[in-house]
Amino acid sequence: MSDKKLQVIPLGGLGEFGMNCMALRYGDDIIVVDAGMMFPDAELLGVDIVTPDFTYLVENREHVRGLVLTHGHEDHIGGIPFLLSQMQIPVYGTAFTLAMVERRLDEHKLADKAKLNTVKPREKLTLGPFSIEFIHVTHSTVSCVALAITTPLGVIIHTGDFKVDPTPTDNELFDLHTFAEYGKRGVLLLLSDSTNVDRAGYTESERAVVPRLEDLFVRSPRRLVISCFSSSIHRLQTIIDLAHKHGRKLALLGRSLNNTTEIAHDLGLLTIPNGILLRPQEIMQQAPSKLVTIVSGTQGEPMSALSRVAVDNHKNLSIEAGDTVVLSSRIIPGNEKAIYRMINHVAKRGADVVYGSMNPPVHVSGHGSAEELRLVLNLVRPKYFVPLHGEYRQMAKHAKLAQHLSHVGLEESFVLESGQTLEIDRKGARKGEKVTVGRVCIDSGSLDEVVQDLVIRDRRHLSEDGFLIPIIAIDKNTGKAEGLPEIVSRGFISLEESSDLMQEARQAVIKTLESSSAEERGDWGVMQEKIRADLRRFISKQTSRRPLIMPVILEV
Amino acid sequence: MSDKKLQVIPLGGLGEFGMNCMALRYGDDIIVVDAGMMFPDAELLGVDIVTPDFTYLVENREHVRGLVLTHGHEDHIGGIPFLLSQMQIPVYGTAFTLAMVERRLDEHKLADKAKLNTVKPREKLTLGPFSIEFIHVTHSTVSCVALAITTPLGVIIHTGDFKVDPTPTDNELFDLHTFAEYGKRGVLLLLSDSTNVDRAGYTESERAVVPRLEDLFVRSPRRLVISCFSSSIHRLQTIIDLAHKHGRKLALLGRSLNNTTEIAHDLGLLTIPNGILLRPQEIMQQAPSKLVTIVSGTQGEPMSALSRVAVDNHKNLSIEAGDTVVLSSRIIPGNEKAIYRMINHVAKRGADVVYGSMNPPVHVSGHGSAEELRLVLNLVRPKYFVPLHGEYRQMAKHAKLAQHLSHVGLEESFVLESGQTLEIDRKGARKGEKVTVGRVCIDSGSLDEVVQDLVIRDRRHLSEDGFLIPIIAIDKNTGKAEGLPEIVSRGFISLEESSDLMQEARQAVIKTLESSSAEERGDWGVMQEKIRADLRRFISKQTSRRPLIMPVILEV
Repeated sequence: MSDKKLQVIPLGGLGEFGMNCMALRYGDDIIVVDAGMMFPDAELLGVDIVTPDFTYLVENREHVRGLVLTHGHEDHIGGIPFLLSQMQIPVYGTAFTLAMVERRLDEHKLADKAKLNTVKPREKLTLGPFSIEFIHVTHSTVSCVALAITTPLGVIIHTGDFKVDPTPTDNELFDLHTFAEYGKRGVLLLLSDSTNVDRAGYTESERAVVPRLEDLFVRSPRRLVISCFSSSIHRLQTIIDLAHKHGRKLALLGRSLNNTTEIAHDLGLLTIPNGILLRPQEIMQQAPSKLVTIVSGTQGEPMSALSRVAVDNHKNLSIEAGDTVVLSSRIIPGNEKAIYRMINHVAKRGADVVYGSMNPPVHVSGHGSAEELRLVLNLVRPKYFVPLHGEYRQMAKHAKLAQHLSHVGLEESFVLESGQTLEIDRKGARKGEKVTVGRVCIDSGSLDEVVQDLVIRDRRHLSEDGFLIPIIAIDKNTGKAEGLPEIVSRGFISLEESSDLMQEARQAVIKTLESSSAEERGDWGVMQEKIRADLRRFISKQTSRRPLIMPVILEV
Repeated sequence: MSDKKLQVIPLGGLGEFGMNCMALRYGDDIIVVDAGMMFPDAELLGVDIVTPDFTYLVENREHVRGLVLTHGHEDHIGGIPFLLSQMQIPVYGTAFTLAMVERRLDEHKLADKAKLNTVKPREKLTLGPFSIEFIHVTHSTVSCVALAITTPLGVIIHTGDFKVDPTPTDNELFDLHTFAEYGKRGVLLLLSDSTNVDRAGYTESERAVVPRLEDLFVRSPRRLVISCFSSSIHRLQTIIDLAHKHGRKLALLGRSLNNTTEIAHDLGLLTIPNGILLRPQEIMQQAPSKLVTIVSGTQGEPMSALSRVAVDNHKNLSIEAGDTVVLSSRIIPGNEKAIYRMINHVAKRGADVVYGSMNPPVHVSGHGSAEELRLVLNLVRPKYFVPLHGEYRQMAKHAKLAQHLSHVGLEESFVLESGQTLEIDRKGARKGEKVTVGRVCIDSGSLDEVVQDLVIRDRRHLSEDGFLIPIIAIDKNTGKAEGLPEIVSRGFISLEESSDLMQEARQAVIKTLESSSAEERGDWGVMQEKIRADLRRFISKQTSRRPLIMPVILEV
C-alpha cells in the first residue's frame, strides 16, 4: 500500500445547493469532478450567476490532470467557462454532456481552446494515479454517469446526481450490477447525492408522468402548451410520442429548448417523427385541437418564452380561452413569486393551468429519495462515506441513513462542507486542512464581471435603507465651508417628508464642522468620519433608519 | 324588494395573499369585514409590514357602521391599528379575536380609543340594514366564525378562513347545520376562502398530528423542542396534553407564545395542568428526558427565540447532541432560506430536526382543500359566488369548482381582484366601479412610517446596480466648473476596478459641460438632465450596468 495520502477536496456543493465541484488529490496528482454554477439567491442583489472560487485549482494548476463530468446540468457544468478561462485542462464526459458544455464555451468564445474528450459508460480512463470507470445512472437528463475511481488506496465511488428509476422512458437502466460488483470487491469511499434525502420512500419513475400527460392530450379541447426543463430529454420524448399518438403537431418555443433538442436529436437521443414539427410562425394557423407547443421558461424567468406568452407578448403564440397550459416541472424555491405571477396572467387569459403536485403526477424529481439512497449505500457498502450535494441538514440526515452499515464495514461517515478536506492514508480517514473556497459572483454572465463582496454588501445596505450623502464645499484658501452643505438622498424617505429633516440634517453637519478644531478640519478623512458618525446618530434618532451615509468634501 | 343596490367592495386579499379586508355597502351604510396586514415579499425592500389602502373607508367614514372580524390571525386583524388611527368605528369579534386585537392596539397605544364588542357564535348583531349572525367554523386558531349577513336584497355568507375539521381537538365542530339552514332558505351571495383550492381531497384533521407528536414524545431520548405558530392554540393544547401524559415538564420561550398562551388560558381556551410549567431559567436544570420546550419562531425570524437557540445565543436553552427539534408548522414561501439556515445550525449542534411533510404529519393546514370547498358550496347553494383569499389563479380555480351548482341555482361566479366592486340589485349582479386600493408599506411597525412607492422603487434600483453621483462645483460668478467633477459611487463596481472608469466618467461629465451652451449651463435642471443622460450612456456602454445616476450641481 502507498505512503501517499488521498485528499477529498470539496470546492462547492457541500453545505449549499448548486455549483458542485470536487477535487481528488493523490500525492501531487489532482482530478476534478464537475465544475457547476448556481443561480444566486435574492440576498445576492443584482448578481446573475455564482461560480465556485477556483483558487485551489489555479494555485495547483500544474498538478491538475483533468476535469471529469457526471452530467450536463448547469449546477455541474455551468462553471466550466470560468474555470477554463483560468487554466487549460482536458475535459471528459459523455457526448451529450460535452455538447452541453460546448454550447456554454461557445457563448464565451472558449470552444477552440478546450480539449473535450468523449467517454462512454463502462469505459475506463486513466489520469495519473486515477483509473476512472464510467457507470450509467438514471436522472432527469440523459447520458448521466457515476464514477468509480480506483486509486492506490482503494476505490472511490462518486454517484453524481441520480435516481434509481426502475422503468426509465429510454429503457437505459441504472447500472446496478456495476455498483454491486464494486461493492462486492470493496469500496474505500462513497460520495453520494443527498438532494432528496428528506423524502421518504422512492421517487416515482419518469414514466409516472405519462398517464397525466396523456390525459391532458386526450381531454384538452384546444391548444395544449407544455413547459418543462429544456434538458429533460426524456420528458420531451414523452411529449413528442404523445403528440404523435394523438395526432397533434408539435412546435417548440425558446432558445434553450431548441438548442438542447437539436443536440439530443443529433446524438440520436431524441426521436422526432417526420412531419410532426411545425415552425413557430405556423402555430396560430394550426387547428387548436391539433397542436401541442413546448415552451421554455418553467421558472417564470422574465425574458423566457412562457413569460412572454403569459402576457400575450410573444410573436408566435397567443393563449386563448379554453387553452390548457401545463407546467411539467418543479417550482424551485425562491421562484414562487415569479412563477405564480406568470400563472395568474395565463389564468386571466381564460386558460386552464395545470401545475404543482397531483396524483398521478405531472412532474417527477430526478433525484433519489431516502430508499434509493439506502439502496446505493447497501450496494456499495463503503468503508467511509461522505454525503454530497445539499445543505448541512440534508448531508447530516444522509449520514444517519448510513448508520446501519456499521455492521457491514462502514467505519465512519464525514459531513463535510465546501473547503473542509478529508484525508485518507494507510492509517485511516480524518478531516484535514481547509482550503480556500467561496462564491464568485458574476453580474452579467461574462467572464470578467466579477462582483466583490463589498459591492454586494453595499447593495444590500442600500436596498434596505437607501443612502444619504452630505456634500460640503470647503474653500481651499480659508479651509472654511462655503455656504450650507448639500444633502442628496434616495431610497430613504420620501421627498415631501424629508424637507424638514434635511434642513435639520444640514444644521447637524454645520454643527459638526463648527465644533471641530482647525487641525481636524485640515484632515478630510477625520472630518468625513466625524460627519458620518454625527449624522448617523442624528438620523437614527429621528427616523430609526440607518441609511448608508457617505460624506463628500469638495475643495473649491 | 329594495331599490337600493348592494356593493361588495374588496379592499385587500383578492388577487393577493394577506391583508384581507372587505367592505359591504347597502345604500349609504357600510360594514367592513376584517382589516388584515401582510408581510412584504422580498421585492418590497426594507419594508416591514404592508396594510391595505383604507382610502375608500376614510372617505366614507360617516357611513361606516362597524368592523366585523372573523378570527384573530394577522392577515385578518393586523391592519386594525392603522385603520383605527384614521377613523373611529366599533369593532365586533369573538373574545379571543378581540384579545388578539387588543394586544396590537396596546402596542400602538390605541387601546383606550377602540370600542371592542364581544360576540359569540349563533348571536346576531344589527348594524344599519345588515343583520349579522356569527357561525362557528374550524381553522388553525380558536374562536373563528363565518358570517351570515342578511341584507334587504338577501343573505350574504362570508366564510372567513376555514377547514371542515371532522374531529377538532377541542370538539367544537364546524357548524354545518347553520350553513345548511341558510342554504335551504336561499343565499344571495357566497364569499369563500380559496387558499387551498390547489389541494385535492380533504385537509387532514388537526387531530392527525397527534400520532407523530406522540411518537416524538415517546422516542426522543433527550430534550424535545417544538416550534409552532403561537396562535395555534389547538396545537399547543395537544403538546401540553402529551407532556402531561408522558411526564415531561413544559417550558415556553418567546414573547408572542407567552402572550397568546396567556390570552387563551385566561379565556378558558387552553388547559394547563397544575405544576407542569417550568420557568425559562429552570430549563437547563431539568432532566433532558423530562422536558419539552415550546419555542416561537417557526419561520426563522432573525430575532425569534428559535433562531437564537439555533446559534446557541439564548440565555435559557442550549441545544445539545441527541436533542430533538420539531418544526410543527408550514414553511411559508419566501422564508425557505431563513428557515433552512436555522435548521442547518440546529443540525450542526447534533440535534435531530423533524420538519417538512411526512406521514403521519407533523403539521396540518388550517385551510380546507378542494372537497371541503365543494362541501361548503353545496351546503350554501348561492345565487352568486365570489372566491376570496388567493391569487387570481386560485380564485379562478375556485370559481370552476362551483360550476356544477349552475344546476341548482348558481347564476354566476365573479373572480374579483381587490378594488373591483360587485354590485347587486333587483335586476341581478355585475361588476361595478373600481375603488382606490393599494398597498401601504410601513417601515418599522409604527403608525407614521409609511414608505412611498418611489422610495421602494429607488431601493430596488439601488439594490441591483448601486448608484453613481457626479458632483460638479460651479463658480456662482463665472458659471464655470471649478476643477474636475467628483464622482461618488457605491454598490456599483468595486473600488479597484473603478478608478480608470471613474477617471473616464469625469471626462465624460466635463465633455457634457463643455459642449453645452451658456444658456443651458445657466439652467441647472437642464444640466443635471444632460449630465445624467450622457453619463448613463457612457456607463451602460462600458459596463452594461444601469446604476442610479444623480448629478449634483453645487454653486460655490
